[in-house]
Amino acid sequence: MKIGLLIIGNEILEGKIADANTRQLSLFLREKNLELLTSLTVTDQESSIHLGLQTLFALCDVVITSGGLGPTKDDLTKEAIASYFGRTISFSEDSYEIALKNYERFKRPFAGKEHGYCYLPEGFVALENSTGFAPGLYAEHLGKFLLCGPGVPKEFKSLLEDHFLKLISSHFPATTDLIESITVRTKRIPEEKIFGEVDTTLWDKLSLLGSVSSLPNTMGVDIGVKLKADNANQMEEKKNQVLAIFNNSPIKANIWQIGNLSLEEYVVNLANKKKITYGFAESCTGGLCSHRITNVSGSSQTFVGSIICYSESVKNKILNVEAATLKTHGVVSAQTAGEMAQGLSQQLKTKIAISITGIAGPLGGTPEKPVGTVCFGVTNNGKTQTHTEHFPGDREQLKLRFSQGALFYLLEELEKSS
Amino acid sequence: MKIGLLIIGNEILEGKIADANTRQLSLFLREKNLELLTSLTVTDQESSIHLGLQTLFALCDVVITSGGLGPTKDDLTKEAIASYFGRTISFSEDSYEIALKNYERFKRPFAGKEHGYCYLPEGFVALENSTGFAPGLYAEHLGKFLLCGPGVPKEFKSLLEDHFLKLISSHFPATTDLIESITVRTKRIPEEKIFGEVDTTLWDKLSLLGSVSSLPNTMGVDIGVKLKADNANQMEEKKNQVLAIFNNSPIKANIWQIGNLSLEEYVVNLANKKKITYGFAESCTGGLCSHRITNVSGSSQTFVGSIICYSESVKNKILNVEAATLKTHGVVSAQTAGEMAQGLSQQLKTKIAISITGIAGPLGGTPEKPVGTVCFGVTNNGKTQTHTEHFPGDREQLKLRFSQGALFYLLEELEKSS
Repeated sequence: MKIGLLIIGNEILEGKIADANTRQLSLFLREKNLELLTSLTVTDQESSIHLGLQTLFALCDVVITSGGLGPTKDDLTKEAIASYFGRTISFSEDSYEIALKNYERFKRPFAGKEHGYCYLPEGFVALENSTGFAPGLYAEHLGKFLLCGPGVPKEFKSLLEDHFLKLISSHFPATTDLIESITVRTKRIPEEKIFGEVDTTLWDKLSLLGSVSSLPNTMGVDIGVKLKADNANQMEEKKNQVLAIFNNSPIKANIWQIGNLSLEEYVVNLANKKKITYGFAESCTGGLCSHRITNVSGSSQTFVGSIICYSESVKNKILNVEAATLKTHGVVSAQTAGEMAQGLSQQLKTKIAISITGIAGPLGGTPEKPVGTVCFGVTNNGKTQTHTEHFPGDREQLKLRFSQGALFYLLEELEKSS
Repeated sequence: MKIGLLIIGNEILEGKIADANTRQLSLFLREKNLELLTSLTVTDQESSIHLGLQTLFALCDVVITSGGLGPTKDDLTKEAIASYFGRTISFSEDSYEIALKNYERFKRPFAGKEHGYCYLPEGFVALENSTGFAPGLYAEHLGKFLLCGPGVPKEFKSLLEDHFLKLISSHFPATTDLIESITVRTKRIPEEKIFGEVDTTLWDKLSLLGSVSSLPNTMGVDIGVKLKADNANQMEEKKNQVLAIFNNSPIKANIWQIGNLSLEEYVVNLANKKKITYGFAESCTGGLCSHRITNVSGSSQTFVGSIICYSESVKNKILNVEAATLKTHGVVSAQTAGEMAQGLSQQLKTKIAISITGIAGPLGGTPEKPVGTVCFGVTNNGKTQTHTEHFPGDREQLKLRFSQGALFYLLEELEKSS
């Protein structure tokens, strides 16, 4: 079964927002052993929507649209679908009921049967939207399917989960192949070094078992192997062979996870499992380390807190970095980083403390300490080590890389702690 | 001139990463008065790339591709282009020079003339890549253009800035129309309320002057009006008419910016202009407010720092929230929020302090204080006010909305301070 996504929205082609629904749909389909064939973005014009439908119906069995179902005059998806299929737009009792219920749920007044939400292209069925206002819709046409959801990612997701998959599955028999993916996440090594220097036969060896992919990530690479098998035993055997290849590879030392968790999820789980408290003294990362950690539900079990010490006075007064250290060695120095981590650990009473002080730019660099210079302090159980590194990138990239470096140091301390 | 983007990459259709190049290209083209007609994503297979080229060449004068130029075996863009046009892949001296220079710049050893980077489809010209390794390429074909850049957003951007625009402009005459967009950013009002209740004629009035769009944003709506004019005088007049419409609209009180700055950029500029120091006491936002502020270069002029008080002990020991307050009113309470802001302002010596304590979920909600409950403390010059609000959403959405609420309170305090 071939599935295509048609994204309808000027706001995406004008760069006002980035599309999030391609990723959301892909991840959702992969979980169900389905694949997204293609994703096409068109403007909110009737002619563009027609062109999009024509292009995707030529390639796919199922076309899912996102966007253009809202209440404003640039929302034209339903009108364009109606004209594409030569149908009229008419009042739908179901659509009215759904919209009415949604307004009641959000405690907002509803214009009633005149509201555009109550009208659908003839022959289409209204679908509940459990997180927003606009009903979704779908219809079968010449053995193919058209399913339409709102563009807002949260609402698109609820349509996907509540309706789209069931509708697709009920009309297309599931494949009998088993499909599973293994992701191996590495750190502190570039893509080309892995495949071009350290393990030049890795790709070919893995390719004998499945479809291989390599995705550079912040300060590391994710190697994926997608396996197909006729039955569970065969799948198990293939998985073991893949794991054995990595286990015998010289890149083994760079592997930090076999699995799909984000670095922050992995770190939070490990700290909670080992019951180890931690926190950050963040200067140049400005809160990003803490933000990433607290994106993970359950992080409060062991993440105690952080000090964002953007000014020298906070470093000195709250973290007890000596004024002499700041003066002699500078704000971005191994000495300052060490005292920041030590101070954080003492003030917040954490077992592990990670500090980050560096130059994210674009201003503030010097010939001795150019933009991209960063010093990490790592305190574990009262003992402190420091590391000085250099990274490339603009301000946002550098903040991300600095935070990734800090989380890798935290990970390494957690791994060796009991 | 019609421009289309072909995104080549399994990693996007498998949901491993989200495409960032559509947005980047759109924003870049808009600055130059050009428009992106459509964006199509296909897999790294030769047949899919052929289909993508065929689809886009039928619609567009210029096709830009992103992705598939890397060194691994799933990078097939050049091979697919060669077979699409019936050409061979051959050694390119220019491509070799570019790759060699890139490896020298990154101080990495280069395999030499055998490296895939040195080979191009016949008739294509190599383009420098100032931020990565893989050269870009382009060719003219039957009066149409094909320009290819790497998928890594930073590298794609440098190809765009360094080469693509120049190549496009040199072959297509620029339009003589002037195009300008006005963006009006509102806060604390839903889209439907603006156009359906508060100012029902707004859309139609603006439409007489240009093309109107409405984009819901975190806790607000961005209303865009795209104006075309024959000359500068006419443009100036149209702009004044648009501004007059907003100035006389009942939504005027909800407008916080006429312009395109992010909330954090706007806040940082205002604080720096007024020389007002500030910081955050962040519980449930976990560092996100500080992270957003420190994404803005120059924020260190007035942003002093923050305390991420994820545990009760940090609220009590570092921010001096009374143990009795925490016990009697709870961690998520107006009283705690007030003492957090007061404590932050005293500890970090800031004029303004904003505190945030709430329940981001999915765990931790109670019938009295469900997930989404948040209390803000606002201290300005020693005086403290508090606000309790409720928002919908999952953990990441709630963190974002809580941080947006905090930045709106900061903005309002900055606006009334001198």
